[in-house]
Amino acid sequence: MADEVVLLDFWPSPFGMRVRVALALKGIKYESKEEDLWDKSPLLLKMNPVHKMIPVLIHNGKPISESLIIVQYIDEVWKDESPLLPSDPYQRAQAMFWADFMYSLGRKVCMSKGEEQETAKKELIECLKVLEGELGEKPYFGGKNLGFVDVALAPFYCWFYSYETCGNFSIDAECPTLIGWAKRCLEKESVSNSLHDQHKIYAFVLEIKKRFGTE
Amino acid sequence: MADEVVLLDFWPSPFGMRVRVALALKGIKYESKEEDLWDKSPLLLKMNPVHKMIPVLIHNGKPISESLIIVQYIDEVWKDESPLLPSDPYQRAQAMFWADFMYSLGRKVCMSKGEEQETAKKELIECLKVLEGELGEKPYFGGKNLGFVDVALAPFYCWFYSYETCGNFSIDAECPTLIGWAKRCLEKESVSNSLHDQHKIYAFVLEIKKRFGTE
Repeated sequence: MADEVVLLDFWPSPFGMRVRVALALKGIKYESKEEDLWDKSPLLLKMNPVHKMIPVLIHNGKPISESLIIVQYIDEVWKDESPLLPSDPYQRAQAMFWADFMYSLGRKVCMSKGEEQETAKKELIECLKVLEGELGEKPYFGGKNLGFVDVALAPFYCWFYSYETCGNFSIDAECPTLIGWAKRCLEKESVSNSLHDQHKIYAFVLEIKKRFGTE
Repeated sequence: MADEVVLLDFWPSPFGMRVRVALALKGIKYESKEEDLWDKSPLLLKMNPVHKMIPVLIHNGKPISESLIIVQYIDEVWKDESPLLPSDPYQRAQAMFWADFMYSLGRKVCMSKGEEQETAKKELIECLKVLEGELGEKPYFGGKNLGFVDVALAPFYCWFYSYETCGNFSIDAECPTLIGWAKRCLEKESVSNSLHDQHKIYAFVLEIKKRFGTE
């Protein structure tokens, strides 16, 4: 039986993009179904009845939720092509730690104002600098090749322009090494084809700010 | 070389208790070092410089942070004794999902008042009922034996008395199946020896409420 792989997604979500990158790296064919988060489909409610959130991967009818759990699942099921998690338990633990490191700090920069925004900006820059420290001299977090952490973090890059424009600062000026890494990731077609354009994301952010009255 | 295993812990933490239960189930000897979270040790700051949080497991000098990552690490390194995560990728993904299901809802019941507390209570009960649904007729979340989800969730049981007393409700009345499961877990010495007394936890909660002025 050929694998039937369906992704319930919402295009601007960095969490959905994680799954898209992982599927692309593994060369897995899938059907993407776009969700309207303000009018969720019966399929999403059935497949993720607890959190009702995307992304959900449906593999041969069985749903998996939570982006990092999905990426790990993909890595375990399609293990021969582009392994993402190291096999050594300590290295695996480290990868899981760093993959989960970037929270919703950036989003806060976009959705807040004044002092709250300044704090969010500082926290975001601090977080990015810690990531730069972890990257060190390596081309990718995974070492010579893209790995679990790269898949988890690269999608945030297409939000950077929104963070910068909303927060009026330059991530490139603060964290040039990280920008170098992001650009290296984007040289891979599996990554660039799975992410969305920074300006398209920013247009979405403006729409959301209007909707929530945080212009 | 014998394994040197050190756990940086803070006794009332359910996250620390997860690691204690996992170590006990695997029969691993370790040294526990109690942290003062208001005056963190140089060792903790060195071993978890990013989050500066317990629990941290130090295995032969190398630190691992984040309770579920630690439990997975323990399961992978000491794989022969009491396997916790299933080997099937789909079952593993499900276990990871449920293990991470219980957030800090209970804590909110303890630390809030009035309407906010009522909302937190409702959310907590809803969450516990979802867990009951997932448990179903099984003796443990892991099936016939304790597994990853049981290790992750059992520690919250010693906070139940605090949730109930602060929120003035009975979890037993709302979720008798879950209480049955918790008591079954506690019949295992590895669990009962690793958890703390509900009343001792409640005394700690009272102290915290005094400190933060939420009495």
